[in-house]
Amino acid sequence: MSVQVTVWNEFRHEKKNEAVKKLYPEGIHKIIADHLNKQEGIEARLAALDDPEHGLTEEVLANTDVLFWWGHAAHGEVQDEIVDRVQKRVLEGMGLIVLHSGHFSKIFKRMLGTNCSLKWREAAEKERLWNLEPGHPITEGIGEYIELANTEMYGERFDIPTPDKLIFVSWFEGGEVFRSGCVWERGHGRIFYFRPGHETYPIYHNAEVMQVLTNAARWAAPRITMADKCPNVPEPLEPISEKDVDFGKAGIVQG
Amino acid sequence: MSVQVTVWNEFRHEKKNEAVKKLYPEGIHKIIADHLNKQEGIEARLAALDDPEHGLTEEVLANTDVLFWWGHAAHGEVQDEIVDRVQKRVLEGMGLIVLHSGHFSKIFKRMLGTNCSLKWREAAEKERLWNLEPGHPITEGIGEYIELANTEMYGERFDIPTPDKLIFVSWFEGGEVFRSGCVWERGHGRIFYFRPGHETYPIYHNAEVMQVLTNAARWAAPRITMADKCPNVPEPLEPISEKDVDFGKAGIVQG
Amino acid sequence: MSVQVTVWNEFRHEKKNEAVKKLYPEGIHKIIADHLNKQEGIEARLAALDDPEHGLTEEVLANTDVLFWWGHAAHGEVQDEIVDRVQKRVLEGMGLIVLHSGHFSKIFKRMLGTNCSLKWREAAEKERLWNLEPGHPITEGIGEYIELANTEMYGERFDIPTPDKLIFVSWFEGGEVFRSGCVWERGHGRIFYFRPGHETYPIYHNAEVMQVLTNAARWAAPRITMADKCPNVPEPLEPISEKDVDFGKAGIVQG
Amino acid sequence: MSVQVTVWNEFRHEKKNEAVKKLYPEGIHKIIADHLNKQEGIEARLAALDDPEHGLTEEVLANTDVLFWWGHAAHGEVQDEIVDRVQKRVLEGMGLIVLHSGHFSKIFKRMLGTNCSLKWREAAEKERLWNLEPGHPITEGIGEYIELANTEMYGERFDIPTPDKLIFVSWFEGGEVFRSGCVWERGHGRIFYFRPGHETYPIYHNAEVMQVLTNAARWAAPRITMADKCPNVPEPLEPISEKDVDFGKAGIVQG
Repeated sequence: MSVQVTVWNEFRHEKKNEAVKKLYPEGIHKIIADHLNKQEGIEARLAALDDPEHGLTEEVLANTDVLFWWGHAAHGEVQDEIVDRVQKRVLEGMGLIVLHSGHFSKIFKRMLGTNCSLKWREAAEKERLWNLEPGHPITEGIGEYIELANTEMYGERFDIPTPDKLIFVSWFEGGEVFRSGCVWERGHGRIFYFRPGHETYPIYHNAEVMQVLTNAARWAAPRITMADKCPNVPEPLEPISEKDVDFGKAGIVQG
Repeated sequence: MSVQVTVWNEFRHEKKNEAVKKLYPEGIHKIIADHLNKQEGIEARLAALDDPEHGLTEEVLANTDVLFWWGHAAHGEVQDEIVDRVQKRVLEGMGLIVLHSGHFSKIFKRMLGTNCSLKWREAAEKERLWNLEPGHPITEGIGEYIELANTEMYGERFDIPTPDKLIFVSWFEGGEVFRSGCVWERGHGRIFYFRPGHETYPIYHNAEVMQVLTNAARWAAPRITMADKCPNVPEPLEPISEKDVDFGKAGIVQG
Repeated sequence: MSVQVTVWNEFRHEKKNEAVKKLYPEGIHKIIADHLNKQEGIEARLAALDDPEHGLTEEVLANTDVLFWWGHAAHGEVQDEIVDRVQKRVLEGMGLIVLHSGHFSKIFKRMLGTNCSLKWREAAEKERLWNLEPGHPITEGIGEYIELANTEMYGERFDIPTPDKLIFVSWFEGGEVFRSGCVWERGHGRIFYFRPGHETYPIYHNAEVMQVLTNAARWAAPRITMADKCPNVPEPLEPISEKDVDFGKAGIVQG
Repeated sequence: MSVQVTVWNEFRHEKKNEAVKKLYPEGIHKIIADHLNKQEGIEARLAALDDPEHGLTEEVLANTDVLFWWGHAAHGEVQDEIVDRVQKRVLEGMGLIVLHSGHFSKIFKRMLGTNCSLKWREAAEKERLWNLEPGHPITEGIGEYIELANTEMYGERFDIPTPDKLIFVSWFEGGEVFRSGCVWERGHGRIFYFRPGHETYPIYHNAEVMQVLTNAARWAAPRITMADKCPNVPEPLEPISEKDVDFGKAGIVQG
């Protein structure tokens, strides 16, 4: 069965800014989804901030295996209730791919628990993403590095929990480095952060960047989907010896 | 200088429930703080849910190196604004020690990003906490295991991110196991979860449990305290070559 | 293409000891390989200590995707040269599944760098392996736990590097716990240690144990195979500014 | 009590090569030990490849809290027996600080289990080591980065197990990046790899590099020292129920 992807985009820059509109006339989410839809075994659809429920209804999420997230200038407009909903689904098993300025999205900070802050500079400088894990599914088909002629710079210290695996480290022309590809598991879900993607540079027109996104969609697809529970199991598996003390009862009922 | 500890307690059971009142007449936080205050180089004070701002004012937190957290039945009454405040401080460097049923507190779930759910049973059964890291500062003075005659059972699967280090694993009489001592770093702060501690068993009258809490207070004290920032650094450290393309500008200002 | 598995066995107990011979008349490796050969997409063959080059010639290893390792009483008889050869292949991408008393094999200690010591007791006691990662490929088809009526006990502290992921934790009737399923990545290869397997208990007649081994064979198959190299790259990717100092040369040539 | 440091050096370049001799007339180990001996609470002594038992007798190691290791051109001359001895001590709790070309030393590869290979270039280029963990004891007193005007380049992929914590990432003028400061725990010992240090550049004349070495000596001092054991514990902690099966005995005695 196909991996069901939903590509979420803030989708504001593309309407208001000529430079962005020229690069992504139908939106960053559209170019990503179009690319994914050409790959075998992936079906992608769109969702955006200004859709009802940000396009992330219970039904949409229930039918999403992997959610891509691109946001930048309107993180604060994403409703907490929707963030709760997405987090719940990730913990149940849904994959989450966070792109570029999505580092500051509510959902990314929620999943990781940290500030996710960094250094940044817009100078159209060169970036080289070194591939530290050539055996990881996310880097399939990628060589020693990906080179991007013009990018926004993100520099360390990136305030994230130590990644389970560090996939890419970037070198920037202006002198900084950055952990540009990082994976974590949370609950039953997989998370991938991928740095490239500024709205005024043609990052999503780069074939290697798109290859990484395709790989990530496949890698992050759920291996299992399980609802959370915190069960009382009053019957022990092994006999419990008689206790000669009565401790009384407290518990939540009396709280 | 002394490690400044604030011991936070929901402090409801001890007022309403005879069994709990008998064990902890002045509250679980009081017995912990009293113990810590007898240790060299530690000063502990109290805070509780029903204090103004839950006892966790900006000033209190600014003067807290390590925060202990015990909650059970009223997690939902902790205001989100105070959770934000505590999270910010942990990321700046403050230590956080989460006890027992605090696994379901807002602050613990916030820091870790997962459900923090588990299995549980109240049957006064025996628990043996195996010490996996005899060289870790948290287990100083602790032998191969700590044995508790009567405890509430917590069983796996505990829905947490893989700990940086697994310190204790519990064996339960009734047949379960649990990752009972776990450490993580988030931002510049250190987090320790320690499982023992149910309100109707005399856990905080156990000398080895108290030794672990003392050790944890010392271990979690900040090594550094840094406010978060996400700076624009327009001046590169290295010269950036001339670019022959004009990409225009987008950025948050136009968002 | 099928996953090519080689099941390596010390294969001494089965010849000398009546109890073991009865359980595994053709050897522990044979029962495992037979099981794997019944699974879709897996082809398994045998190798043993007393074969020429321990059955692990360059050719065999070059055609092995995943190597299973069972040893117990003759770890010291495995030649260092063969250990070097296996290590090299694991670092190139071959999977390695180490079973039970293989914790003390040269190859396991070589890959991990630690003593891999533990506590042990032969008392035919009950073991329950709790499944901490129901979403991991290794636990596919396994429920909350695997129960074994009679096993040798292995207890903590198990002297291993912190696993990348802890898959199973065992509860033992006699009071101990153990990290019974652990995964690591080294080089491009994946390593899985799986505790059950003593030669005098019918562990490899248990369907769930065999399911884990099947899953592990699939999971550990190489995602990539790369020979090691440590290249000099005299040509920089970016221009290096003129330096006004002459440092002379040292380097290995003069060593 | 003072931290007892032994600084081990291959100590060959300094005798044979004029460029190296000029920078380090008494050896790289001497300049490091002299610096450490000026710090409060540290006592450092020297050891070298051509000393009897490479200067690492049982007695020396028994009195060493932290061992520094610098080697380059003669890794193969270090006797395996001495490597065994050092490994044993690290697993018991001794700290190990591996410098620069020590990445290819027998002891480093032994502790980590991987090839520890990398890319390299000698072009006297600029390096900037970004400090990812300003709260870690190893970076005390170090700012956002350390800049070195002229260094040998080491580039990714560095074939190491994922570090427990990544402390420094280097940017190189020629276009590469490198994980230049990494920590791991093995057994009860702490390991720190620190990249800077080529013999023809004045790296150990740099105050910030020396500050890192001082910090590392303090951080890696043992928290505990424990000999390895793998005990049989025939007496269970909990009663084991009667078993109605006789499994016979195998075990190492009959192997």
